[in-house]
Amino acid sequence: MLTFYYATNTCALASHIALEEAGADYEARWVDFGSAEQTKPEYLKINPKGRVPALMTERGVVTENPAILAYIAQTHPVARLAPLDDPFAFAELQSFLGYLCATVHVAHAHGRRGYRWADDPAAHEAMKKKVPQSVGACFDLIEGTMFKGPWVMGEAYTVADPYLFTVARWLEGDSVDPAAFPRVLDHRDRMAERPAVRRVLKAEGLA
Amino acid sequence: MLTFYYATNTCALASHIALEEAGADYEARWVDFGSAEQTKPEYLKINPKGRVPALMTERGVVTENPAILAYIAQTHPVARLAPLDDPFAFAELQSFLGYLCATVHVAHAHGRRGYRWADDPAAHEAMKKKVPQSVGACFDLIEGTMFKGPWVMGEAYTVADPYLFTVARWLEGDSVDPAAFPRVLDHRDRMAERPAVRRVLKAEGLA
Repeated sequence: MLTFYYATNTCALASHIALEEAGADYEARWVDFGSAEQTKPEYLKINPKGRVPALMTERGVVTENPAILAYIAQTHPVARLAPLDDPFAFAELQSFLGYLCATVHVAHAHGRRGYRWADDPAAHEAMKKKVPQSVGACFDLIEGTMFKGPWVMGEAYTVADPYLFTVARWLEGDSVDPAAFPRVLDHRDRMAERPAVRRVLKAEGLA
Repeated sequence: MLTFYYATNTCALASHIALEEAGADYEARWVDFGSAEQTKPEYLKINPKGRVPALMTERGVVTENPAILAYIAQTHPVARLAPLDDPFAFAELQSFLGYLCATVHVAHAHGRRGYRWADDPAAHEAMKKKVPQSVGACFDLIEGTMFKGPWVMGEAYTVADPYLFTVARWLEGDSVDPAAFPRVLDHRDRMAERPAVRRVLKAEGLA
């Protein structure tokens, strides 16, 4: 039995959907960011980083979306959520996960978590101002080069799909017009119709 | 035959060392950041992100350190650079790689690449000012919680070791005193003595 720690409207949605797609035996536990639960000793015992997502397994915790997503795929091979027997295809998938995690999510985070990287409120404002451009540039690359279609990695649905779906849901909030990215937008629409996605959105109170 | 694209004094050092530790058949190609070669059409054909590292394989390119490192380990199993038959241990390794990539490297990058996230020079100064604190907090966590010893993941040397070595080489430049992190410092010293590491430092003109 796995325990999955998430907060609403965070990147944890990606791993949450992957667990559901995999048919995993898991319990979802909401972490209340409103009361800063992620900074309290009890949660820090689970994830010393004070972040979500975190997946507690019988052997210990796994953190970071790319690591959790690959773990879900590897431990639920029947669900075929990653090309497990092809190291190159697996590496291409991991490249995509890494880009969302370290570049796209980071660009987005400057809109609301600037305090991580500067103390000056004027700097936070300057960061906010650049988000539409920096996030937009990321989606230019995804739309034009990285997205293979019909799914992120091509014919096969993989753990990259819920991750792109999660990040693409932030576009409007980042003042980026999704209409500039028709393939990403079509993907987002198709994702929203998947039964597993609908169940998770409902469970997180988002639908 | 693999072609590995790197620039000196970047995070590409991690994958470069891993290739050498794996005994991989590769050619290293220096990308001249001084003349902004990474932004030229010829390089963008290799890596549209305009970044290093990039590993060109017979089937296409792999980018992002965590993806490249896992790929090197998976395609060179004899070198035993990752726990390939244990999904949980592999996920723990990937969690560590993800933390270095998306949190530690990102904190560091605010010292010299603030233009990625804000246009205002005053904001860049505010970002620079916070680097010792944000990078220091990352190494507190690595030193106290994440580093298992004697190697990053415990008894076995893995691709996490050259990555930590690479990032730990930035401490002094980030005005973080390495003496506060004796286990990381000892690891860095031991890494520097490994024959593969010495060969790569020499090849990159760093020793």
